[in-house]
Amino acid sequence: MSDTTNDIGPGYVQVYTGNGKGKTTAALGLALRAAGAGLRVYIGQFIKGMHYSEIDAVESLLPTVTLRQYGHDCFITREPTEQDREAAREGLADIAERMHGGEYALVILDEVCVAVDLGLIDVQAVLELIAQRPSGTELVLTGRNAPSELLDIADLVTEMREVKHYYTRGVQARVGIEK
Amino acid sequence: MSDTTNDIGPGYVQVYTGNGKGKTTAALGLALRAAGAGLRVYIGQFIKGMHYSEIDAVESLLPTVTLRQYGHDCFITREPTEQDREAAREGLADIAERMHGGEYALVILDEVCVAVDLGLIDVQAVLELIAQRPSGTELVLTGRNAPSELLDIADLVTEMREVKHYYTRGVQARVGIEK
Repeated sequence: MSDTTNDIGPGYVQVYTGNGKGKTTAALGLALRAAGAGLRVYIGQFIKGMHYSEIDAVESLLPTVTLRQYGHDCFITREPTEQDREAAREGLADIAERMHGGEYALVILDEVCVAVDLGLIDVQAVLELIAQRPSGTELVLTGRNAPSELLDIADLVTEMREVKHYYTRGVQARVGIEK
Repeated sequence: MSDTTNDIGPGYVQVYTGNGKGKTTAALGLALRAAGAGLRVYIGQFIKGMHYSEIDAVESLLPTVTLRQYGHDCFITREPTEQDREAAREGLADIAERMHGGEYALVILDEVCVAVDLGLIDVQAVLELIAQRPSGTELVLTGRNAPSELLDIADLVTEMREVKHYYTRGVQARVGIEK
């Protein structure tokens, strides 16, 4: 087996969607595995603006991984505002710029499907970014309700299906496990 | 939000199963997030004995995470031997010992469902380990074909469903992405 780093081929488009736990978590696992192989990783998180353990983990433990957030807080319980839309658009532009720089083997658009689903950004803008990716760049997109246009052009799609979840029994998100 | 570490409550049992990509990867993401919160993590990998980027990643980047493998190589294409069964049984005993030590907030039994499915270990032995877990210990079990007895007692189950996968187009596992 070769230990050559940054030899990921042309790069593919992976989508993790569905209503179950594990989408962002799998993206973090991909970032960890890539970092272990010496690859550089860029993670852009849409929607989210809260402090999560994953931010501490990436900043303190993974020197080849950069994480940026494009959300203000958690607005699942309120209607999106123009400020939210602007933050998401700027996020997509930031990711495009990073991707075109060509230094990242893996670029993760975390919760981008939710940003599209909420109408913060247009699916067409996401498809354009995907079409423009340089060779040797793997893209990973996460979030529930992935639009069909994205599923159509993706190379790999996993649906994380919730079979059961403890939040239905009132378990709150815990530091180090969920957040 | 509290930043208190090791405050994960009583600890729950999470299962990641299904035929899609993302099960071990999600477990690695959980390990990373936990490490970011300062929690100690033990990862026992059944079946696997090959060198993966995730081993480099854990050993070089995550000081609070320990990973051990209980497989000899990759035997997906051959029949299991008595040596494979012994390795899996010893793995389960090792994990039980680590779990009872109480120093790990998160204990991951990677590919344990495959080990059960292949008949290397009995599901009853896994259920006994789960029943004996100390309070404050989260267990994560991965692998396709999770037995129904495990799904019944789990607190959270996500099925990673393969919608599409590039291996059907001949893409081989790549260092830093799949392995």
